[in-house]
Amino acid sequence: MDLWYTEKQTPNHGITSKILRTLHHEKTDYQTMDVIETRQFGRMLVLDGMVMTTDQDEFVYHEMLTHVGMFTHPNPKKVLVIGGGDGGVIREVLKHPSVEKAVLCEIDGRVIEVSKEYFPAIAGALSDQRVEIRVEDGIQHIEAHKGEYDVILVDSTEPVGPAVGLFQKPFYQGIFDALKPEGIMVAQTESPWFNRDLIARVFQDISGIFPVTRLYTASIPTYPSGLWSFTLGSKGRDPLAVEETLLADRNTRYFQPELFHSLFRLPRFVEDLTKGGE
Amino acid sequence: MDLWYTEKQTPNHGITSKILRTLHHEKTDYQTMDVIETRQFGRMLVLDGMVMTTDQDEFVYHEMLTHVGMFTHPNPKKVLVIGGGDGGVIREVLKHPSVEKAVLCEIDGRVIEVSKEYFPAIAGALSDQRVEIRVEDGIQHIEAHKGEYDVILVDSTEPVGPAVGLFQKPFYQGIFDALKPEGIMVAQTESPWFNRDLIARVFQDISGIFPVTRLYTASIPTYPSGLWSFTLGSKGRDPLAVEETLLADRNTRYFQPELFHSLFRLPRFVEDLTKGGE
Repeated sequence: MDLWYTEKQTPNHGITSKILRTLHHEKTDYQTMDVIETRQFGRMLVLDGMVMTTDQDEFVYHEMLTHVGMFTHPNPKKVLVIGGGDGGVIREVLKHPSVEKAVLCEIDGRVIEVSKEYFPAIAGALSDQRVEIRVEDGIQHIEAHKGEYDVILVDSTEPVGPAVGLFQKPFYQGIFDALKPEGIMVAQTESPWFNRDLIARVFQDISGIFPVTRLYTASIPTYPSGLWSFTLGSKGRDPLAVEETLLADRNTRYFQPELFHSLFRLPRFVEDLTKGGE
Repeated sequence: MDLWYTEKQTPNHGITSKILRTLHHEKTDYQTMDVIETRQFGRMLVLDGMVMTTDQDEFVYHEMLTHVGMFTHPNPKKVLVIGGGDGGVIREVLKHPSVEKAVLCEIDGRVIEVSKEYFPAIAGALSDQRVEIRVEDGIQHIEAHKGEYDVILVDSTEPVGPAVGLFQKPFYQGIFDALKPEGIMVAQTESPWFNRDLIARVFQDISGIFPVTRLYTASIPTYPSGLWSFTLGSKGRDPLAVEETLLADRNTRYFQPELFHSLFRLPRFVEDLTKGGE
């Protein structure tokens, strides 16, 4: 029997991938969760019918959400990851030797448990002694921890269901308040092809709160359009002012020091999203 | 009735797009050709079941195959496009005022005729008086025109059917011979996710012929994986040595002068393809 998984990434377009088997299916308190094994991308974690991560391309998203912000901060010691229950961002955070504590704040504990079982190469770092796992609402967490973090990384699902609040201005203000004076935030902010209004609005929202705001992208083949955006807000250092010679190799497959500054040179139709037009 | 067009971009993965209607279908002497109207990307040209171009994202491929090479050459006057019957690359070539003659060498004349009918915004430039259209085999054309061209752009289909010869070393030697002493070539060279062996081999082949070889990529959502590669060979100038201040605005939506140098800063897993490993 020929089984294919199809995700309608928009009402009118999607991807389809041949699957060998379904490894896991459940309805948690927050969302439906599936783990399927595909021929092209290996195991795939699917939440509410949307691909979250796969064995083959997970490195791009996890590296690119993490290292740009981590290298922009001069000395990141305490890091918060909101969402990201699969543990991939935590794994990348821990590659920075300055890190003393990495807090994972994931609202759905089942994502953590299932990731540990089916994605050990992604979730393995969650057992590191520098990691503190909090199964709670990220919005409440930042309200209770003002001025505590050096870097906050927002590894959310799409802006539907439990993640709606993670794309709104009060949330970014809460992040600002939870950061120390030199603090940095980075959020995943969807596709420059399919989510143009959202990216433009988030960029404006973050620009209205943080002194420095920068947009960059990465190629993620299992995400809608294959191009994904990330928005960085900084209380202090501008990533453009980071000296490339200070960047170290962190055993990465997508990110590398030579790539850092070029990330902020955007295709014109993407850069337009930062200019308040659209 | 809900109609969806699905392209298996690999045996195990593909895209699927909602279509409103089929506008054209024929079997030419070389391939099957369809024009369909999709909700997400507008009209779509499909050859042998593979998306060639769409209204919504055509600008990326056409700009990025064209302008990097055109700006690397100090004074491109005579340009050859091999393949590219839709006319999009010719349109971009003609944005450079130095161009005196642009030759389109397309083996399948039906692609040109159908593109003129259904994609006027792409094919319109084919009626420019600087354009010469040759319905013939590109390999034979370059053999008959040695030392004639400043820039040669290879806008081929995938390396199956009529385009197989356009991904082989003798073809790149033929291009080298058809170029003037300062000549530049650029070829589309498939996806860094799905065609790694091909990209690595082509890079080695072109490196074995041209003194300078460079790889770069662009985001094309309707192409396999959403990330596409281009390989540049130069007899003279290295694109890394081009001064950004000399680059002019050519009324583009993806390419812009500020992007030029950053294109050659590659993600590590892409840069690896240029190192002869894999």
